[in-house]
Amino acid sequence: MTERTTGTKVGIIGLGSMGLGMAKAALAAGLDVAGYDVADAQRDALEAAGGRVGTSAADAAQGAEILVVVVVNAAQTERILFGEGGSGAGGGAAAGMAPGGVVVSCATMAPADARRLAASAEAAGLLYLDAPMSGGAARASTGELTFMASGTPAAFDKAKPAVDAMAATVHRLGDEAGIGASFKMVNQLLAGVHIAAACEAMTFAAKLGLDLAKVYEVITQSAGNSWMFENRVPHILDADYAPRSAVEIFVKDLGIVADMGRAERFPTQLAGAALQMYLMTSAAGMGRDDDASVARMIAGVTGVTLPKGED
Amino acid sequence: MTERTTGTKVGIIGLGSMGLGMAKAALAAGLDVAGYDVADAQRDALEAAGGRVGTSAADAAQGAEILVVVVVNAAQTERILFGEGGSGAGGGAAAGMAPGGVVVSCATMAPADARRLAASAEAAGLLYLDAPMSGGAARASTGELTFMASGTPAAFDKAKPAVDAMAATVHRLGDEAGIGASFKMVNQLLAGVHIAAACEAMTFAAKLGLDLAKVYEVITQSAGNSWMFENRVPHILDADYAPRSAVEIFVKDLGIVADMGRAERFPTQLAGAALQMYLMTSAAGMGRDDDASVARMIAGVTGVTLPKGED
Repeated sequence: MTERTTGTKVGIIGLGSMGLGMAKAALAAGLDVAGYDVADAQRDALEAAGGRVGTSAADAAQGAEILVVVVVNAAQTERILFGEGGSGAGGGAAAGMAPGGVVVSCATMAPADARRLAASAEAAGLLYLDAPMSGGAARASTGELTFMASGTPAAFDKAKPAVDAMAATVHRLGDEAGIGASFKMVNQLLAGVHIAAACEAMTFAAKLGLDLAKVYEVITQSAGNSWMFENRVPHILDADYAPRSAVEIFVKDLGIVADMGRAERFPTQLAGAALQMYLMTSAAGMGRDDDASVARMIAGVTGVTLPKGED
Repeated sequence: MTERTTGTKVGIIGLGSMGLGMAKAALAAGLDVAGYDVADAQRDALEAAGGRVGTSAADAAQGAEILVVVVVNAAQTERILFGEGGSGAGGGAAAGMAPGGVVVSCATMAPADARRLAASAEAAGLLYLDAPMSGGAARASTGELTFMASGTPAAFDKAKPAVDAMAATVHRLGDEAGIGASFKMVNQLLAGVHIAAACEAMTFAAKLGLDLAKVYEVITQSAGNSWMFENRVPHILDADYAPRSAVEIFVKDLGIVADMGRAERFPTQLAGAALQMYLMTSAAGMGRDDDASVARMIAGVTGVTLPKGED
């Protein structure tokens, strides 16, 4: 990796559609960005965008004052930060950070995992910001994400240059790790149920023989509307199931809700029913397709016709 | 009943919070309104508002060019229109209407019921507008309801003076009865699931120890938002379960969805799960309370604390 030059040193681990966009937003803000991803193509994309690329997660994190971890789940986050390091290995990123640096943890995870990771970071002399986000890839690259964040005032202060570059809105939710994660899980419970409900309602409408474009028009003006109905139903109307967000994301996130509910002895009946619908959709071979594919799954089972004669 | 005076003759059967408001809106528009309700208090309220009161449904409907039926379900609508009439009896309203008059049927019902009622009305020489509505009591009295309506052009034309007086928005959805009812059921499926999801999410948030007012603030700005979340969660935050819309409404409406699903062999998994939550809330003694009481039911089962230490 070439030498870092100017600006706050920021490492970004995970250069998927979100992480790459966040790296671009950080570069645009003049930060000194080094990134890493296991996929060659994603590393190349960062380089093409003007960022520097590490040879490993630990290399990209070397000397970082802020390390943004944008991976799939708590297990990956933990391995990257505290797992075995060295050339070719994915872990060991925390050890090489600047002393007193801050880990900005963006993966959706159970609050208990966020608390455990924060404790490990603090034991290593680092700060930790529990900072799950929402907003999608387009907003990531324009620096307009929303963070649902919690952590010590010192962690917020230290993370500020990166967070300011990446976010339009920062909900500052408390002083302890786990609170941000909890808010994100509440949001994911609702989002996951609402997408599945939109798919159930639109296929029900198809079964009733209704004009589906008209259903969209009427419902978005009615009490049955949701943010997700408004956002996802156009995918069904256009028969466009290219993944903006994949079915597997909600298999994962409603799975976390289900795990939390079991651990806490707290039933989540609708989230549980919705999880089964995402699982059925994944089982039918659409796990990597857009989450509006729940409608295709229901249509496939029931024989109703959706726009443009999908599968 | 005193003599009618000026304006189009409009009968309104059912003077609950919706029907009474609609009668007021029709009076404000200068229509010649006569109403009937089985409850003395509701008839008195119409009289106090300047409307005329019939001695029976048939009496209020006598000579009406437009008869608006705003009752609970298809069975009541059918009995009022075509059931046995006479003094003290609830039925026989269709027979006394002006020839070629229009029935405006507002109850939420299965599309098959709407089609059957329309056929009966047509056999009696009447027009029929399948016109379920949304908007609540406040909007009813200001003439700002939304109708999801279908029927022949002649039915729309004939109903126009009353519909114009009562509605801010009329979705004109097709030429046949049953289409309006179908749209309404799709809306109710979503609305019912979204209220139950809001209650599940808020009690889950309480279990996680979150600041519930902050949850409301964050979620209403996030992808987890819904029209119902935004509207009903304040009831939970204020511990105010006075019924704006009662639990029993969704026991009924999701029950219709369930019946339709069984008849059509079309599974509605989320609506089915939500129906059980409303049933549990009703079984726990809260059937006549606000539908946000689903949160109280979950709190009661799980032991979480909601604002102001409700039951």
